[in-house]
Formats: sequence, C-alpha cells, structure tokens
Amino acid sequence: MRSSVKNIDVNRVTDSGIETKPDLLAIEEPLEIRIGYGPLGDRQQKSISVTMRTPGHDFELSLGFLFTEGIIKSFEQVESVKYCEDTGRQEEHENVVRIELKPEVEIDFLKLQRNFYTTSSCGVCGKSSIDAIKINCNPLPDEWKIKSTIIHGLPDKLRKAQHVFEHTGGLHASGLFDQRGELILLREDVGRHNALDKVVGAMLFKNELPLSDRVLLVSGRASFELIQKAALAGIPVVAAVGAPSSLAVSLAQEFTMTLIGFVRNGGFNIYSAAHRVEK
Amino acid sequence: MRSSVKNIDVNRVTDSGIETKPDLLAIEEPLEIRIGYGPLGDRQQKSISVTMRTPGHDFELSLGFLFTEGIIKSFEQVESVKYCEDTGRQEEHENVVRIELKPEVEIDFLKLQRNFYTTSSCGVCGKSSIDAIKINCNPLPDEWKIKSTIIHGLPDKLRKAQHVFEHTGGLHASGLFDQRGELILLREDVGRHNALDKVVGAMLFKNELPLSDRVLLVSGRASFELIQKAALAGIPVVAAVGAPSSLAVSLAQEFTMTLIGFVRNGGFNIYSAAHRVEK
Repeated sequence: MRSSVKNIDVNRVTDSGIETKPDLLAIEEPLEIRIGYGPLGDRQQKSISVTMRTPGHDFELSLGFLFTEGIIKSFEQVESVKYCEDTGRQEEHENVVRIELKPEVEIDFLKLQRNFYTTSSCGVCGKSSIDAIKINCNPLPDEWKIKSTIIHGLPDKLRKAQHVFEHTGGLHASGLFDQRGELILLREDVGRHNALDKVVGAMLFKNELPLSDRVLLVSGRASFELIQKAALAGIPVVAAVGAPSSLAVSLAQEFTMTLIGFVRNGGFNIYSAAHRVEK
Repeated sequence: MRSSVKNIDVNRVTDSGIETKPDLLAIEEPLEIRIGYGPLGDRQQKSISVTMRTPGHDFELSLGFLFTEGIIKSFEQVESVKYCEDTGRQEEHENVVRIELKPEVEIDFLKLQRNFYTTSSCGVCGKSSIDAIKINCNPLPDEWKIKSTIIHGLPDKLRKAQHVFEHTGGLHASGLFDQRGELILLREDVGRHNALDKVVGAMLFKNELPLSDRVLLVSGRASFELIQKAALAGIPVVAAVGAPSSLAVSLAQEFTMTLIGFVRNGGFNIYSAAHRVEK
C-alpha cells in the first residue's frame, strides 16, 4: 500500500527565529473511479468520479463511493475491483480504480446524475436534494439507545487512533463504533467524504451493511453530503466534533437519524431524534 | 439577501443533564451555476456546477467560480449575472444563477472538463493535475515581502470579523489582507472553496484582479483546490490556520507561491517560497 504521508523540510518561524526542520505532509492525489458494466459481449466503461484523496484503502473508497451514491446496492453486484493498468503512465496506475459489475446489474444513469448534481430537472433546493436521497434509503432502526456517557468519550478514542493526523495534523477522520463505544474501524483522508466512504466500503467488503447497530463519529463538521452517505449506509446515530449545517439537520430529521454535534468539552448538542440517547 | 443562519431548538447534554435551548445553524443549500454563451441569434445555456453553499454573495460565488476554474478571464467577458426565474418552483429561484457571457466569448469546453476532472486523457496523477492548472496561470509577482509579525496576527483578525462563525461554529472563512495585515474582505461558507470563490468574485466585480499585492488567509487546511484557486487569482502569499496537503505544497512550489501553514500559537511553517517572508 502506498504511503499516506510525505517528508518535507519546512521553515519553522517563531518569536525566537527561523529554523529549517523536517515535517510530514498528508498526501493528496487524484483518484478516478471507473465502472465496467453491461451484458457479456457488450461491456461498457464509464468514469464515475475523480476525487482528491489520500492514498490507501483505495478499493474501499471506490466501493464505498459507489454504494453511498446509490450506484450499487450490495457487494453481490460487484465482480472485481482492481487498479487500471492501461492508463499509459506508470505514476497513474494506482490512481485509477475500475470496479467490474456483474453482467446483470443495471445502472440507472439518470438517477446517477440526480445523485451527483441536483439539477433543475428535479429541483435545486434543500427539499429536492433530500427527496433525491429518499429514493435510495431504507428506514433507520429504532430499537436501541446509546448512553450519553459513551458519546462524551468518542472523540478521545478517535483522536488516539488517528495515526496519520498525529503526524501531519492534516486529515479528516471517520470512526465507526459499537453501542458500547468500542472503536471498530477508523479511516482518515484529506477529504471528509472520502474518510466516510472508506469506512462504508470496508464494511461492504465484509458484507456488514446496513450498519444498523453502529455509531459514526466524524472529526469535523457534519455536512449534507456526510449525512446522505451515513443514511445510505443505514447508520442510525451520527456524531460530529464540529457543527452540523442546516441541510444536514433537515436530512437527519427526515430520516429520524440521531444527529449529534459539538461533542467536546464535556457536552454535546442533539439536533434530531434525541430519543436514541439516554442518560 | 437571504439569511446565512437558521434558528433551531437543540437538546444540550452536559454532566448536569439535558436542557432544550435555542441554537443557530449555518445554512447549506444547493446553488446551480449556469452560463449563457454563443453568438447572438444562437445562444446556448449550460449548467456548469451545482455546489452546496451558504446563501449570501451568490453572484460573487458564481463569478469567482467561473474565474478560478479558468472558464472566464475577466469581468469584461460578462454581460450580466442574475437569478434564473424560470426554474418552475419559487423556492428554487435564488438557488440558480445564470451568468450571461458576451457573444464574442468562446468557451473551451474541453479545457473546462480538464479543470473539473483530471481524466485519463490528461493523466490522473499529481503532476498532471498541476499541469492542467498551469495552462491558465500567470507568474506570481515577486517584488514585495511580508513581515512575520504580520502573519502571526492574521488569524485573530479573521476570527474577530467572522460574524456567522461566531454564532454557528460551522463556517469556513477566507480573508483577504493587504501587506500591512489590514483585512480587506472576508467571506464565509460551509464549503471552504466557496468562501474563496466569493472573495475572488467580489474582487472580480471591482475589477481588482489579479490580487498581486494581497495575502490570503484560510480558516482551515490548505488543499490542492484552494491553492489552485488562489493561483488563478494571482495571490502570491497564502496562509492557512491548518495543515497543507502534499499536492497543495507541490502546486505552490511550482508557482513560486509563498505557502504558510499552522499559523497559530505564536508560530507558523513556510512550505514554499520563503523569500517573501522577512523577520
């Protein structure tokens, strides 16, 4: 696996002067995700996305992306995942992933476009953005609760497991926890949505979706996009160290997802579906 | 202008219990940017992008986006900027901006695609991503220096001027400063790239591009995308409160842009073109 960090010399400036010192950077490189699809004898290829990501767990990222954007429904639909080796240049080989879908899988390219962009055909407003997600989402489970003391402790556990962040200070993280607050999986990336896609893709590989009995913690703010991806993955409780946006809250409310923000300094805010949190 | 914040009641959980209290959220809504182009008598419309943004300064955002993506070169090429009123639904009217280009302006749609996505035709790697930007960029000016004491003071000035962040804790900011460290313009948004596009668009409206004698401070991390946009706007010194990514540093080095990170706690790191910083 390629490294997630790069060595560099920087000029460190403080009150006592300037000194040259070694530093580590989080790597950012483009990743193109392609799918191969169609009946045997008439296979097609389509480039689905180019995302700037931190190398590592590229297959999980690609699979997770296809799933959280509603393009694939299960790991069963996937024939193979590999790097493209026909890109021409050596340095690109590990920046292009091709996911081969099974011949019988049908792709709704109209819906695919709706998911990426909310275009005028389906409306450009918060409501229509939410409606576009609803097509692909199942209801979230409502039969379990989480203790507030467990939520208070999540950020510390995430931070302690964030190895790349520790060195670079430059990465977003998504952590998946069980109901007792044990960390199950952590992924880091320069893009917050990529970190979550890596988590979802990893669980898809293990055939553990939907994530009905899991809690997600994201290191930064909770945007519409993150809540969309969490909802597609079936996660009923999402917590963020930072603030949620208005549309993130609206989407969480629509799906009765428990959305928690500002988990820090011994407190947190519940923005939606507070009934899943108990004293 | 529409509000950037929304009122909501949240459940605040601390050691002393749960209470309901009013809170403010940063608004996130989609914005579709369209261009009208082509010779008189044969005008065309194209949807260029849908971005999730905080309402406010939408025209600046749209103009700035077209400029920092290399689609337009100057304000002279713009005939008009307005909200589309033919979208069908009332709630969408202020979420679709149409920029009418002058009839003689030619759009290179191939290049446009290169800028949005680094596709296999031009290579999917850091180097080719940088090459794609180079086509549109002029060299940055090299004739002035900035004092390190001024850089130390920028984050405080930015934070004090961030009104929406103060209330919501949920926004990225881009601040444009002069060489003495006076704040010239601040814009906030749920998307870090949008905050910068709003700054660039505002200066484009004033016909003040390139921003050759300005310093940019961004509230978070410095990604490739931010450095790309700053380079297109001709900003020679970019500082970030957080960490830069590897590709942000490579791009800054390529353009001899002074890139500064971790401006906090009385210090900062210089990642590129340190000669513009003096004691």
